[in-house]
Amino acid sequence: MTSPISVVFHSGYGHTREIAKAVAAGSGGVLLAIDEQGELAPEGWAQLDASRAIVFGSPTYMANVSWQFKRFADASSAVWARQGWKDKLAAGFTNSAGINGDKLTTLYTLFSLSQQHGMLWAGTAMPPSNTKAALRDDLNYLASFAGLMTATPSDASTDEMVAGDLATARAFGERIAQVVGRIG
Amino acid sequence: MTSPISVVFHSGYGHTREIAKAVAAGSGGVLLAIDEQGELAPEGWAQLDASRAIVFGSPTYMANVSWQFKRFADASSAVWARQGWKDKLAAGFTNSAGINGDKLTTLYTLFSLSQQHGMLWAGTAMPPSNTKAALRDDLNYLASFAGLMTATPSDASTDEMVAGDLATARAFGERIAQVVGRIG
Amino acid sequence: MTSPISVVFHSGYGHTREIAKAVAAGSGGVLLAIDEQGELAPEGWAQLDASRAIVFGSPTYMANVSWQFKRFADASSAVWARQGWKDKLAAGFTNSAGINGDKLTTLYTLFSLSQQHGMLWAGTAMPPSNTKAALRDDLNYLASFAGLMTATPSDASTDEMVAGDLATARAFGERIAQVVGRIG
Amino acid sequence: MTSPISVVFHSGYGHTREIAKAVAAGSGGVLLAIDEQGELAPEGWAQLDASRAIVFGSPTYMANVSWQFKRFADASSAVWARQGWKDKLAAGFTNSAGINGDKLTTLYTLFSLSQQHGMLWAGTAMPPSNTKAALRDDLNYLASFAGLMTATPSDASTDEMVAGDLATARAFGERIAQVVGRIG
Repeated sequence: MTSPISVVFHSGYGHTREIAKAVAAGSGGVLLAIDEQGELAPEGWAQLDASRAIVFGSPTYMANVSWQFKRFADASSAVWARQGWKDKLAAGFTNSAGINGDKLTTLYTLFSLSQQHGMLWAGTAMPPSNTKAALRDDLNYLASFAGLMTATPSDASTDEMVAGDLATARAFGERIAQVVGRIG
Repeated sequence: MTSPISVVFHSGYGHTREIAKAVAAGSGGVLLAIDEQGELAPEGWAQLDASRAIVFGSPTYMANVSWQFKRFADASSAVWARQGWKDKLAAGFTNSAGINGDKLTTLYTLFSLSQQHGMLWAGTAMPPSNTKAALRDDLNYLASFAGLMTATPSDASTDEMVAGDLATARAFGERIAQVVGRIG
Repeated sequence: MTSPISVVFHSGYGHTREIAKAVAAGSGGVLLAIDEQGELAPEGWAQLDASRAIVFGSPTYMANVSWQFKRFADASSAVWARQGWKDKLAAGFTNSAGINGDKLTTLYTLFSLSQQHGMLWAGTAMPPSNTKAALRDDLNYLASFAGLMTATPSDASTDEMVAGDLATARAFGERIAQVVGRIG
Repeated sequence: MTSPISVVFHSGYGHTREIAKAVAAGSGGVLLAIDEQGELAPEGWAQLDASRAIVFGSPTYMANVSWQFKRFADASSAVWARQGWKDKLAAGFTNSAGINGDKLTTLYTLFSLSQQHGMLWAGTAMPPSNTKAALRDDLNYLASFAGLMTATPSDASTDEMVAGDLATARAFGERIAQVVGRIG
């Protein structure tokens, strides 16, 4: 009696965790945290095996996923060897300080990981908010399609994250749940 | 009484067309050719609207899709404005002369186009053939995951394409049909 | 008695042209416009041949460079055949409406084109403005490294472009001129 | 009296180390190995500081650089904070079992890291060997431009690597030395 959706993420300073929580709230997914050594508990791996959808999340550090997230990805080679995630749905999100930065590179990394595993991929499917009247707190103000992007200033605490980003994260989670419902 | 799958492609010298035909044979999809000016006939656009899955194909020229394919992609902005391809399945393929070249960049371009449209994406889901015993005619010898890659020597005619690439293209088409069958 | 730097660009609605002008102002480069059919005049190609640095610019349309820019890139295959741009410096910029959008994909396309040509690449080398105190008009508020990104709201005229983006474009041009001065 | 070029790499099973050695032989560069925990000795970091060019190398594991390489990249954030690698030359290479795989994604990761650091980038500048007469041992048979790609079958020992790949690696090293000589 668990959720068919897992949200597996690494967070270095807690901001990506807040985004993960919002994605989990929107999707009804189970949160699985990769620890500071890049490890995921055996129960976490079992939960991923049992999931129909896996949402991957990582901060963007030095132009890509954190090394802890990558260590998790490398460890998933054992799953790949038995094609354990094949045909599951995948999606991804990332947070960093800069408005752009290399967040799209991070999303490509998450996408490419999913493709090696033979998973399907779902993005945000959200129109951007990009007119003169656009506000930072609008849904998908960051105008991302391949996955969820959020930006938290480098000196902001986890209490100071952008409300619109958290709302976008929740809407993204809802989107993932819809797709899971459809593809069974 | 048409297929739910469309294979829309540009081919400059006929090689990508052969791949497209193999993908269509495997998937049961309808072939839609973008012409040398980057135009697709109105009936083609209507077929795309009616499809449940769209497979995009282009040669890789100068590190990415051909300009004709990109002109088609740019014209799809009118479809995007009405969210006409949202929730359809997408996939992609590319052919070029070099064994690697920038084929993966081309696949990222096709993927990114699909994500702006709010589509789902399916890759090859095929293990690579990558041992010492691997042969050029093995399925997925090119070892591609995000989409189908094929390589045709720069001086090869359309009669001299690699048999294993054509077989991989057919298997890729079968994979797309399976996914369409599953997600309805 | 011309500049060693060329700024070759396509602009659909005039916004990318404004960015190109700012890059040219900062770098002392010559502006070369690709027309609405994706053509560059023969004098333009000759100027590129004579340049020591080429800055490529394109709007981001439907997740990548405009088809007109890609037509220019495809036409450069004739230059590639004679290795005409080998060892020149390259750089790139792009403008679109969304704050992120797929601008980084566009920059990867420009980079990959340069790499096929055997060129060197220089990015912005600018720290991002990404603290709580950051303002939209700060230098590199868009936090881009691989090349210059600018964002112009979808309903903004060329008179309503973001002043900070234009200033960043000028600074980017100055950076390119510095690098050209250094590498000779 | 050391070299101006550093070749910093991680190797999991020794194959990437052989490529690194060939790049170092061609470039006259100093080899710096990232260990199995993703650590580089302090002397290594000092050598990088003193270098005029840094060549980054990593295997491609699960669609991108190894986690050990990424840990090194993340640790370089301290260098970034003081802009310690700004204006140096960068280049990259990767090895994996599949002929394509996601090696280009790995090269994009290395490139993006360099761009955050404000470095210049040089690719292979080598024409591909892509005709019907092409042989696996030709220079740049893998047809890569943005950086060096090599492919070693999954069951090949370090004594069974492809001779043409090692020759290409040496030629790539020579190219880097040429560029360093030019840009001073």
